[in-house]
Amino acid sequence: MKILIAGLGLIGASLAKTLKKNTSHYVLGWNRTESVMKKALADGAVDEIGDIADLIPKADITFINFYPDAIVPFVLKYQDVFKDGSIVTDSCGIKTKICRELEKYNFKFTFIGAHPMAGREVSGYDNSLPNLFDNASFICTPTNASKAKIDTLVELANEMRFARTVVTTPEHHDEMIAFTSQIAHVLACSYVLSPLAPFHPGFSAGSYRDVSRVARINGEMWSELFIANKEPLIREIDDLTSNLEKFKKAIEAEDSKTLESLMAEANKIKEEIG
Amino acid sequence: MKILIAGLGLIGASLAKTLKKNTSHYVLGWNRTESVMKKALADGAVDEIGDIADLIPKADITFINFYPDAIVPFVLKYQDVFKDGSIVTDSCGIKTKICRELEKYNFKFTFIGAHPMAGREVSGYDNSLPNLFDNASFICTPTNASKAKIDTLVELANEMRFARTVVTTPEHHDEMIAFTSQIAHVLACSYVLSPLAPFHPGFSAGSYRDVSRVARINGEMWSELFIANKEPLIREIDDLTSNLEKFKKAIEAEDSKTLESLMAEANKIKEEIG
Repeated sequence: MKILIAGLGLIGASLAKTLKKNTSHYVLGWNRTESVMKKALADGAVDEIGDIADLIPKADITFINFYPDAIVPFVLKYQDVFKDGSIVTDSCGIKTKICRELEKYNFKFTFIGAHPMAGREVSGYDNSLPNLFDNASFICTPTNASKAKIDTLVELANEMRFARTVVTTPEHHDEMIAFTSQIAHVLACSYVLSPLAPFHPGFSAGSYRDVSRVARINGEMWSELFIANKEPLIREIDDLTSNLEKFKKAIEAEDSKTLESLMAEANKIKEEIG
Repeated sequence: MKILIAGLGLIGASLAKTLKKNTSHYVLGWNRTESVMKKALADGAVDEIGDIADLIPKADITFINFYPDAIVPFVLKYQDVFKDGSIVTDSCGIKTKICRELEKYNFKFTFIGAHPMAGREVSGYDNSLPNLFDNASFICTPTNASKAKIDTLVELANEMRFARTVVTTPEHHDEMIAFTSQIAHVLACSYVLSPLAPFHPGFSAGSYRDVSRVARINGEMWSELFIANKEPLIREIDDLTSNLEKFKKAIEAEDSKTLESLMAEANKIKEEIG
């Protein structure tokens, strides 16, 4: 197959490098900044570059790797250019808003939202890696796709050697991601915004390091992701705040029994589920 | 010097192994469960074991490695047994309650509270390591100690090859630890107590793993630590909750400008301070 990677930032370029490393598909690459796609070609991360309007009709599968708000406009702009019967997918971290909007159209191609779940605290082509997805889930959230098209995309993810593939609804994806990823970023940022953060050197160890790691964040992109996933994320913030309140009340009351039982429950979840 | 390690759990036994590895001091070891101290002797983690009342008067420095609430009673119980002019210290994670209580007494030895800042998600002698403190701070919080005694303890920490030593007040230690360690544990537990936690496999990656890591916790010990450091910890919970509230309001209002500025600030702290 010919696979187009549109957007050669951290995720797009890592997808391209993974395709080149683990499959024999032909990889078309495009990036808004021309120097980046030239570099990708020189590096062997892609097999061919060119104008987006020339590349799109050649692709059997197109991965769109843009900020969330740019995906629907891109698909609509090129809706008559994508190859008939091809698959168009994306790699962004929220799915409902995108998939439920695009399912309204009768395209001659199939759109299947996807989320290759990996990231780094650094971004851009130069930080992309051919093994970024080695332990990652490939989640896809088809709405009106045929079984054959879903199978094609999942099979590709398996060929690329994702650790696992998950097919689910956009809504379930977004609810889970609000918990596993978005709230983790919100709380890491909320944590380091404490007035004491600047004074931590000498007083911090592994727990500070780990809990604060994802506060190194691209605010522009995550702001789009948070707003696009407003309801599930606010539910998670409310749950977290209510659990913090339980700890606070128990500490204020010096109620060690309640504290121990809250921690026993948390410890059990980590031991049993991870 | 003869150095007594009272309590051979994760921290005590790691201190003993570090002393044996990096210094030539003679290490006395004691543990409530006799089989543990016999094992430590057999392993070469300590040079001598015996009855606590026989070991204490031999020691130039005694490290007490118990749960927080057991430290003051132990010092008072053996106050007439510690060697004249010796140093008695501890390794627990809160300092004000212990140091401000013990400074009321006129001992013939010097008590200097300390906190060798390292830990693991697992506990007990069998998980102790000779390199647990390789990248760790040794914090001590003298109140009424002479400069010579403080220097002796700090010099020992340097000999043991702690990454750095910090001398500060018990109050400053406890305020910083409420931020760098205690609230990190409270929020990791509060996080995994979300109703969605059991369903995370397949939907989680590095951010879930890191933010939730320290939810694997010894609730009995941390309950004592939290209650002993009530005021600073509640201030941190309040700060965190108020920052979470800022995120929530901005997400509800779809106010990307405020979200981006909150994250830019958090990102700046991580980039500049770590």
